Amino acid sequence: MIKTVEWTNEGVRMIDQRVLPTEVTYLTLRSYEEVADAIKTMVVRGAPAIGVSAAFGLALGAKQAVGTDATDLEQDFDYMCQVMSETRPTAVNLFWAIERMRDAFRRARAETSSVETIKQRLVEEAQKIYDEDIKANRALGQFGGELLNDGATVLTHCNAGALATAGDYGTALGVIRGARDAGKRIAVIADETRPFLQGTRLTAWELAQDDIPVTIITDNMAGHVMKQGKVDAVVVGADRIAANGDTANKIGTYMVAVLAREHGIPFYVAAPISTIDLTLASGDEIPIEERNAREVTHIREQRFAPEGVAVQNPAFDVTPNKLVAAIITDKGIARAPYTESLRKMVKG
Amino acid sequence: MIKTVEWTNEGVRMIDQRVLPTEVTYLTLRSYEEVADAIKTMVVRGAPAIGVSAAFGLALGAKQAVGTDATDLEQDFDYMCQVMSETRPTAVNLFWAIERMRDAFRRARAETSSVETIKQRLVEEAQKIYDEDIKANRALGQFGGELLNDGATVLTHCNAGALATAGDYGTALGVIRGARDAGKRIAVIADETRPFLQGTRLTAWELAQDDIPVTIITDNMAGHVMKQGKVDAVVVGADRIAANGDTANKIGTYMVAVLAREHGIPFYVAAPISTIDLTLASGDEIPIEERNAREVTHIREQRFAPEGVAVQNPAFDVTPNKLVAAIITDKGIARAPYTESLRKMVKG
Repeated sequence: MIKTVEWTNEGVRMIDQRVLPTEVTYLTLRSYEEVADAIKTMVVRGAPAIGVSAAFGLALGAKQAVGTDATDLEQDFDYMCQVMSETRPTAVNLFWAIERMRDAFRRARAETSSVETIKQRLVEEAQKIYDEDIKANRALGQFGGELLNDGATVLTHCNAGALATAGDYGTALGVIRGARDAGKRIAVIADETRPFLQGTRLTAWELAQDDIPVTIITDNMAGHVMKQGKVDAVVVGADRIAANGDTANKIGTYMVAVLAREHGIPFYVAAPISTIDLTLASGDEIPIEERNAREVTHIREQRFAPEGVAVQNPAFDVTPNKLVAAIITDKGIARAPYTESLRKMVKG
Repeated sequence: MIKTVEWTNEGVRMIDQRVLPTEVTYLTLRSYEEVADAIKTMVVRGAPAIGVSAAFGLALGAKQAVGTDATDLEQDFDYMCQVMSETRPTAVNLFWAIERMRDAFRRARAETSSVETIKQRLVEEAQKIYDEDIKANRALGQFGGELLNDGATVLTHCNAGALATAGDYGTALGVIRGARDAGKRIAVIADETRPFLQGTRLTAWELAQDDIPVTIITDNMAGHVMKQGKVDAVVVGADRIAANGDTANKIGTYMVAVLAREHGIPFYVAAPISTIDLTLASGDEIPIEERNAREVTHIREQRFAPEGVAVQNPAFDVTPNKLVAAIITDKGIARAPYTESLRKMVKG
């Protein structure tokens, strides 16, 4: 089982996703600042994994706080939450996890003024978020697996696997694993996913470890393989789903969705309830992170672009709900109209 | 002026497109085998540039042939044509240029049995193909430039610039240069174009040298920037255009065409007459080159994919005629129905 992020006595342990698969390295982060930095620099990425990491980071920060009374701890904790919330803007799981931790703090504070008890509760809450994430992905994998036929080839974009979650199963790859565990033979086509190459580096690595057949293509080949009839379904993860079903996910997802419709291929989004943001009416309101130009001009240390040329590097795009055949969650499968179906999933 | 390929007394001189823009290196190829190898390994690439290079390569091979009578030379020349024709399968300009050289041989042979004269005629024919290519691109640039409005932003895929042709102007970038030379301000968005990164390495470099504003994006960002309203037109080159207007071009072009239609953006193909292949009724008949998996698993010397994973690496795809707003040639602008308009361009 792939362990993406874990709580240990020494700190928060993570697999370094920047260097996979050529190096399999685990880092132990010994402060909440180190965790925040790991999120920013994509040591860990993937919306659910970011949420779980942030929760562990806050638990670690609280545990290490030196204040001796609950008011001091609260002030420190608020500051840590602020730092953590500024790591990345798009994945709502980050803010959701921070809010869960704040709630846990408030509940503990209402019961006790023991700093040690509050700290303990925060560690427990983070561990609970971790456990729930693994369970949620198992559940959505089972629901989603039913949508795939035996023998199907699924195209996926980026990595929405074990590495994008607490570990184990993943979201989009959770659906593939769910189908596999239901006895279906599934093959995967993985878009390489520039600029960070999550498809080539992470998805292919995960699936190869599970003996699920995987073929890598560059992002610009997706249309061609669909036209050749090689793709039966598309399954992707999500970083934030608005109330109407508009879905922010890794840059390029929108193109895949347009192409899937062009070829009559169902396009599925797989995400836990924690990725749904009912406070945003539509995808137009989702903040899209613009990352450093160097990710596009360079690959690792090598420069490929001429000096002085402009670059755009939006890390995400938004796929409108009309292109989404279904949203697979841990509570079941939501279909259009999403404003109703998603509200039911979240509230019910 | 960018000199992509040139005839010199020492051999065929080419800029090495594998290492641009970080290194600007010229290679002098001293045998037809070296030229064939340069085409195969993409020292030179781009359909018109491949055609011109093949012609120069055959002229060089003929010049160096040791046979003392015309029959010997013909036999050697046939063999060289065979070797040259096996370098790459998709760009029809290669076969067109070889056929031009064969014709020149036949015409010379009909007139004379002087080996020296035949050799001289072949060198002249190759030089003529070179000159015509530069003129053709100037002409199509002027025609195509009229399709672009002052202030337009044009998205292009791969490199269909000076570096894809004999030099100077290019095809798709010829259209942009044509508009610029007509006094219009044009900005360009260049898809990076994996796996060979022609957009980042070649298109951005060419345009920066010409002070034409260029912004690099990864291939999977094209849909997003179109959705944001940042693209007014798409102009791409072509490797082979079937009689019905179906167009083979660098992998990913098809996706860009689908996205352009989705966003109501005109999608133009720019290519000289030598790229039109009236012998093929539709794009289904165009052979698509599958290149080495290593181009996808590695970037330069670095491996990014896990070992043992499957890869697809089609170098081209086919865009159906229905997605093409116009085909810009050196004889004018062809519009649907292409079976008629292209035949007129070629025959008339």
